[in-house]
Amino acid sequence: MRHLLSTKGLDRDDAIRLLDVAEDMADVQGREVKKLPTLRGKTVVNLFFEDSTRTRISFEAAAKRLSADVINFSAKGSSVSKGESLKDTAQTLAAMGADAVVVRHPASGAPHTLASSGWIDAGIINAGDGTHEHPTQALLDAFTIRRRLHGAGSRGRDLDGVTVTIVGDILHSRVARSNVWLLDTLGARIRLVAPPTLLPVDVSGWPAEVGFDLDEAIDAGSPDVVMMLRIQAERMNAAFFPNSREYARRWGLDDERLARLRPDSIVMHPGPMNRGLEISAAAADSPQSTVREQVANGVSVRMAALYLLLSGDREDS
Amino acid sequence: MRHLLSTKGLDRDDAIRLLDVAEDMADVQGREVKKLPTLRGKTVVNLFFEDSTRTRISFEAAAKRLSADVINFSAKGSSVSKGESLKDTAQTLAAMGADAVVVRHPASGAPHTLASSGWIDAGIINAGDGTHEHPTQALLDAFTIRRRLHGAGSRGRDLDGVTVTIVGDILHSRVARSNVWLLDTLGARIRLVAPPTLLPVDVSGWPAEVGFDLDEAIDAGSPDVVMMLRIQAERMNAAFFPNSREYARRWGLDDERLARLRPDSIVMHPGPMNRGLEISAAAADSPQSTVREQVANGVSVRMAALYLLLSGDREDS
Amino acid sequence: MRHLLSTKGLDRDDAIRLLDVAEDMADVQGREVKKLPTLRGKTVVNLFFEDSTRTRISFEAAAKRLSADVINFSAKGSSVSKGESLKDTAQTLAAMGADAVVVRHPASGAPHTLASSGWIDAGIINAGDGTHEHPTQALLDAFTIRRRLHGAGSRGRDLDGVTVTIVGDILHSRVARSNVWLLDTLGARIRLVAPPTLLPVDVSGWPAEVGFDLDEAIDAGSPDVVMMLRIQAERMNAAFFPNSREYARRWGLDDERLARLRPDSIVMHPGPMNRGLEISAAAADSPQSTVREQVANGVSVRMAALYLLLSGDREDS
Repeated sequence: MRHLLSTKGLDRDDAIRLLDVAEDMADVQGREVKKLPTLRGKTVVNLFFEDSTRTRISFEAAAKRLSADVINFSAKGSSVSKGESLKDTAQTLAAMGADAVVVRHPASGAPHTLASSGWIDAGIINAGDGTHEHPTQALLDAFTIRRRLHGAGSRGRDLDGVTVTIVGDILHSRVARSNVWLLDTLGARIRLVAPPTLLPVDVSGWPAEVGFDLDEAIDAGSPDVVMMLRIQAERMNAAFFPNSREYARRWGLDDERLARLRPDSIVMHPGPMNRGLEISAAAADSPQSTVREQVANGVSVRMAALYLLLSGDREDS
Repeated sequence: MRHLLSTKGLDRDDAIRLLDVAEDMADVQGREVKKLPTLRGKTVVNLFFEDSTRTRISFEAAAKRLSADVINFSAKGSSVSKGESLKDTAQTLAAMGADAVVVRHPASGAPHTLASSGWIDAGIINAGDGTHEHPTQALLDAFTIRRRLHGAGSRGRDLDGVTVTIVGDILHSRVARSNVWLLDTLGARIRLVAPPTLLPVDVSGWPAEVGFDLDEAIDAGSPDVVMMLRIQAERMNAAFFPNSREYARRWGLDDERLARLRPDSIVMHPGPMNRGLEISAAAADSPQSTVREQVANGVSVRMAALYLLLSGDREDS
Repeated sequence: MRHLLSTKGLDRDDAIRLLDVAEDMADVQGREVKKLPTLRGKTVVNLFFEDSTRTRISFEAAAKRLSADVINFSAKGSSVSKGESLKDTAQTLAAMGADAVVVRHPASGAPHTLASSGWIDAGIINAGDGTHEHPTQALLDAFTIRRRLHGAGSRGRDLDGVTVTIVGDILHSRVARSNVWLLDTLGARIRLVAPPTLLPVDVSGWPAEVGFDLDEAIDAGSPDVVMMLRIQAERMNAAFFPNSREYARRWGLDDERLARLRPDSIVMHPGPMNRGLEISAAAADSPQSTVREQVANGVSVRMAALYLLLSGDREDS
């Protein structure tokens, strides 16, 4: 694997290989000394054009547990804000010897541009670009589903036949997009539930059923997985729906809906959660919730991505 | 030791054990290679909800000299500012595998909440919470006093009979509180000197004599230790006392008062100093001043705290 | 070498020794594992009173590749902004055991003050002070020129007889100053070309020819090296010259001027570039451009500086 830019372009074998390596990394994290010497002498740059402490420290922990040197580059207050182009930033990092660049950018497609430009030879990992993709989030979600449903020893398996309902602001969510492509590749059956104003115009072309009614989605055969998306407060004033109480009432996973799920259904959320809005406190903290496992698995999956990009012979892809 | 939250709850044996381990760490810092492999593979998170570069880099240096991986998490501009709760932040750090969390928080009690909540299993070190406590500051102060008065080889000793006068804004000072509890535990005799408006209402219950007149405190038997507190500029407009010149005149350690101290009395300040306000330049730089030793000892004491929390078998406390 | 404060005070032997060590470091960076254990247990502090992500991460990468522990200290939002003096900051870093301090400061002379004050024993590296000096930039420029003109195996050589034309805002440029002193020490012949309003008043005392006309400078025997300086946008409103289009037309290295250079002349720029202003995109990306090599060589040169300051017996200088 040369880059990790999207799940849309990730084939089934590469996806499963990454999940399997993540299982090995989860074993490392369970040890007393949570560290491998694998990436000693490699330099990983976290290039963040948007703030995201959670994602940044997850990658930072992952890289350090593989013994890489980590350099954090927040584009705010840097020469980027003096007008330096993405090209010049990329060439600068290449010249400094960056082996991998983890990039978060408000513009959809910026990581692809970096990877395909020839400006930099480093492995590029997309850590979220605009409303486009956030592939490591989808991979950690798939890893979490596989572990919960098939157990930790399920190397090699996909998610054939698993039913996943994704609920919330699909329109603006790169998490939703990355999950849809990856879950489809892994054989899952996907249903999207959202207010009509929060669905993308091209959703009819996605490999997913679409609905507007969460109660109907739960009652029409409780799904194996309910994945709640984060609601951005700033959308609330934007005429997408009346107000946050109305949103919670119709599309929130409240206690009553939680009770109607199958006991073995799992509840996911990428975090940070708005407790009381898209998810109730009881749902967030229930044994069915995988929120904390998702965070832990995020480090394992990012270790796996860095390992596959940086160790041994990198293949073209 | 499982956590280091306050000196009020720290018993004499644990305090002296920590000071003794800090002596070992001071030896390490005196070496050509100031580094031990002890905490290799451990992850220490600096979780700072308030800016404090001095304290943060002291902990960072301490953790790195023990070979831990350090992740800095400034809560500003993070999802915390998007409304994430302390609970979710804690569970996120737990899930990422944080072994210790060094937390500074504007709310008194936040580190206790973290430690007692069950949200996170990591060792919690209070790096300053509201006006409550700053235990590593008090421990480095005690370490500094013991070294100056009893020498570097004074392992096992306490501060029995040592007289300490703490001067300044006791009301808002977590440094003063942590020092009062620890110094009392170690057998010192404490006198507080402050403007009446800068004393807490419950001070009569503290194990300390209280006075308003610094000259009287100096002349009534020069203390072994004079500890000057930092005055926050923002208090100056707050009707606590007339103005900064008046404050310096009555409660500052100026050259004239310095001259009246016993030659073997020591002068302490937690830094950063307002030279010319609570302490004169001559006092700050005199041979009696321990300001720089306090900073150096801070790294040793923090190494000791991290070592006791993270190596070997952590005991419940 | 005890400090690296300026190129004005750097003698020829020290300069060439540093360039030669940088050749060794460039070899290390070419390896699969770009890392030496040389500075294990040393602490390097990046003390930045001005933002400069590029310079900071270059030093950070350099220090980490030598296995030093790196602590980033941005003076913004720190106790420095609470009014702490440079003296107290220096003494704090000394007490924490900093072995080297890389300092960028808006005041010319601040690094000299640090080094000569006795406040701190650490090796001081000037990473840019006011309009005064930026010695590692000049050293990486000299290294780049030597490699391009004499090849990688040119250890021991200086730049005798090399002609260098420096173009742009000489008045405000610490890069220009550091280059002039170092290039002169190494035997190069220097010409400065600038708008009259962007030349310092004392330029007649510099070891350089001075002119106002870039075309004349190119046509009067194409120089071996054309070094374009960055134009600060804020100067544009300051009556130094009409406007940016006029600047580009008269002092920019555009495609037409690039074509008139000798094919073996090299084009340098310290970055970040204003493409279309002081340098055209074609010039920036041409085979004659060394912009990316300068960045790569910057890490090697900074590794060399840290190595010479921190390993083995530091000599007084």
